[in-house]
Amino acid sequence: MKMVNVGGKRKTERMAVATSRLHMLPATLKRIQEGKVEKGDVLAAARLAGIMAAKRTPDVVPLCHPIALSGVEVTLAPFENGLEVRVEVRTVDRTGVEMEALTAACAAALTVYDMCKSVDRGMVIERVQLEHKSGGRSGTWNRKGSKR
Amino acid sequence: MKMVNVGGKRKTERMAVATSRLHMLPATLKRIQEGKVEKGDVLAAARLAGIMAAKRTPDVVPLCHPIALSGVEVTLAPFENGLEVRVEVRTVDRTGVEMEALTAACAAALTVYDMCKSVDRGMVIERVQLEHKSGGRSGTWNRKGSKR
Amino acid sequence: MKMVNVGGKRKTERMAVATSRLHMLPATLKRIQEGKVEKGDVLAAARLAGIMAAKRTPDVVPLCHPIALSGVEVTLAPFENGLEVRVEVRTVDRTGVEMEALTAACAAALTVYDMCKSVDRGMVIERVQLEHKSGGRSGTWNRKGSKR
Amino acid sequence: MKMVNVGGKRKTERMAVATSRLHMLPATLKRIQEGKVEKGDVLAAARLAGIMAAKRTPDVVPLCHPIALSGVEVTLAPFENGLEVRVEVRTVDRTGVEMEALTAACAAALTVYDMCKSVDRGMVIERVQLEHKSGGRSGTWNRKGSKR
Amino acid sequence: MKMVNVGGKRKTERMAVATSRLHMLPATLKRIQEGKVEKGDVLAAARLAGIMAAKRTPDVVPLCHPIALSGVEVTLAPFENGLEVRVEVRTVDRTGVEMEALTAACAAALTVYDMCKSVDRGMVIERVQLEHKSGGRSGTWNRKGSKR
Amino acid sequence: MKMVNVGGKRKTERMAVATSRLHMLPATLKRIQEGKVEKGDVLAAARLAGIMAAKRTPDVVPLCHPIALSGVEVTLAPFENGLEVRVEVRTVDRTGVEMEALTAACAAALTVYDMCKSVDRGMVIERVQLEHKSGGRSGTWNRKGSKR
Repeated sequence: MKMVNVGGKRKTERMAVATSRLHMLPATLKRIQEGKVEKGDVLAAARLAGIMAAKRTPDVVPLCHPIALSGVEVTLAPFENGLEVRVEVRTVDRTGVEMEALTAACAAALTVYDMCKSVDRGMVIERVQLEHKSGGRSGTWNRKGSKR
Repeated sequence: MKMVNVGGKRKTERMAVATSRLHMLPATLKRIQEGKVEKGDVLAAARLAGIMAAKRTPDVVPLCHPIALSGVEVTLAPFENGLEVRVEVRTVDRTGVEMEALTAACAAALTVYDMCKSVDRGMVIERVQLEHKSGGRSGTWNRKGSKR
Repeated sequence: MKMVNVGGKRKTERMAVATSRLHMLPATLKRIQEGKVEKGDVLAAARLAGIMAAKRTPDVVPLCHPIALSGVEVTLAPFENGLEVRVEVRTVDRTGVEMEALTAACAAALTVYDMCKSVDRGMVIERVQLEHKSGGRSGTWNRKGSKR
Repeated sequence: MKMVNVGGKRKTERMAVATSRLHMLPATLKRIQEGKVEKGDVLAAARLAGIMAAKRTPDVVPLCHPIALSGVEVTLAPFENGLEVRVEVRTVDRTGVEMEALTAACAAALTVYDMCKSVDRGMVIERVQLEHKSGGRSGTWNRKGSKR
Repeated sequence: MKMVNVGGKRKTERMAVATSRLHMLPATLKRIQEGKVEKGDVLAAARLAGIMAAKRTPDVVPLCHPIALSGVEVTLAPFENGLEVRVEVRTVDRTGVEMEALTAACAAALTVYDMCKSVDRGMVIERVQLEHKSGGRSGTWNRKGSKR
Repeated sequence: MKMVNVGGKRKTERMAVATSRLHMLPATLKRIQEGKVEKGDVLAAARLAGIMAAKRTPDVVPLCHPIALSGVEVTLAPFENGLEVRVEVRTVDRTGVEMEALTAACAAALTVYDMCKSVDRGMVIERVQLEHKSGGRSGTWNRKGSKR
């Protein structure tokens, strides 16, 4: 088990985009959009949870390097079956930020689940995936078919 | 926004089971099973990451109560398209452990992703869901069709 | 230096209320209230930061006991010179939650400062104080003149 | 909600000074100065708490960037109504350390409160403020009338 | 890998004592005792670091249960070759606090090392060991020959 | 008390090697090597715990700078009386990684202790020490007699 040595890599601008989708009942989505969830503003909490989780990624993913994140943005938008989370993370460092983006995408979806679970325990997080990454030795990667 | 008051609830034995699935290339699964992943023992790392993440849930999910977990078990098993994570969390407390189980299920899958991403960046986490919960005022809940 | 032994105390319902005030320019308050701060929804972020900080109090205040918080509520309201934060924390434990309430009151004010500092670096946090506590051997305490 | 992208900024030497004041009864200050507080050495604990809190600022203030702090110094001195905390934080990074200095100033004052609250629950933290910052695009800022 | 289920155990008073020894040059010990270490008060910092580390044990030792510590006391005393750390941890919970005591004993010794390493890099931590535990199903255990 | 300012130092490649030894009964070592410990794979857990603890060093050792670790490797090998832990940490930063290596060496040993304590409570951690460091102004240091 090792956290591989990246000391020989160059510091370059790197970016990653990840998404996740939380499937829910139509009534749950409506409740969120109308601001009627008892625990408070679900979308604001999910965005903040995503940002904070991006910063804590090295605590959650054991072999992840601690990285000086230079920017994180989390957005949530409705889709046909619930909410889609989109996270964009940027750094200028020796290793990429894919894990930070994916971890934030999970945390934002988990936060929505937590705030609505009393009315919709069956919600499911689907399709947590990397959409795009750029920067670093391995260069740019785009998921096939991703609109990004 | 509030962390709802559970002070009036009784401390009872509570349990939750959550699962997640990481879809991957057949070659990636084979590599994991044969112990040929450069970063080390993927299954052991994922199990441990899940357990540690269960303990840090209140840091990841903002409105989650801090809970005295009495037991956590994480198992990984192959399915047709990759690896399935199953997490079982127990407590004797005033509130349930669904979020702990779901957070651990995400963290274990993220850890596998992290350790294998250099050979299979397209992996997708699917179907992060609660399978079962018991204990507490709202009683037992089972996902329909879940074999548990 | 010691974290004093509370093992002999009884678990009872305990509550604490703390407040803080962030003094700011009138234009800054207006900008917050109109939702025009570039970094996002200041009031939602401050409430969430307060709740999360309450949970991390034992990491911030060295001799503080780790406590199973049963509820936290953070509210913000304008006053003549800016925003007033009010935090209410509850537990059923062997020691009080004054430090959790005060720490949350600081964190919420710091979060507002952080989000608005580019337009008003001179903001000042004033009057971080306990308003009320109840429960435990030392019983109820109310700040003189506090409307609570 | 976003953690704004600072990737385009240059790494420069940056410094921030913040202060806070804890008002207390004369007898409490005397007790601290004479080393008669039951929980131990208050001034040493407050200094250490301030330093550790500076490092944890990104966990406490949600939109704060994680920063590689290069130095932190916390001092406490008596003033007419209690103790004044002064924190100096330095970095060589893309964003400033005002939040680290202010967070440390809160944590040090909270630690004194915690250690003395059994004898003086009415203590109040006042005037948590930035005194000075330098470095970065926005240059040097000094609070008017600050002796620094 | 699992965090074993302790939900069936009874909450009882439990205690553990652990010690560690940091061997150093006589000149280093003298410097500490005379308060001449440039980084500050070594003994106060070590005591505080031990207490804080006890609280963070579940983050450091992966399969350790999160426990509501009811008291922690760390003392340091000179012995013929350096400093001996002694930690006493108490709880009223379902599982013991041996790991908390041992983790604190390590953290206190590491803190002394850190503060003095510029003048004595060869210091060695020796004999980190449990001296005593009591409470719980396995009852009392004393190290043979321990003066405790 | 201060975290000394390293802002004037140059970022250079730095490395540190630390070791620790956990003395145990021969039967305990055999049980570990044969994979018969009830809590799971001891060696994998210890390696992971070491890596994660290296990343959390600034939380455990109060005056330690937060550092961007570029690599961590933890290995365990049997010796005549138990298990020897060896940790190698690398960075490209303004200050060294001795504390990260030593903290990881403690955490790995503590994790083995935790997983085996029910069958061998008398285990002792011995000889936690720096073996080697290189890089930075103070240059290379090797422990006398260390085979490294």
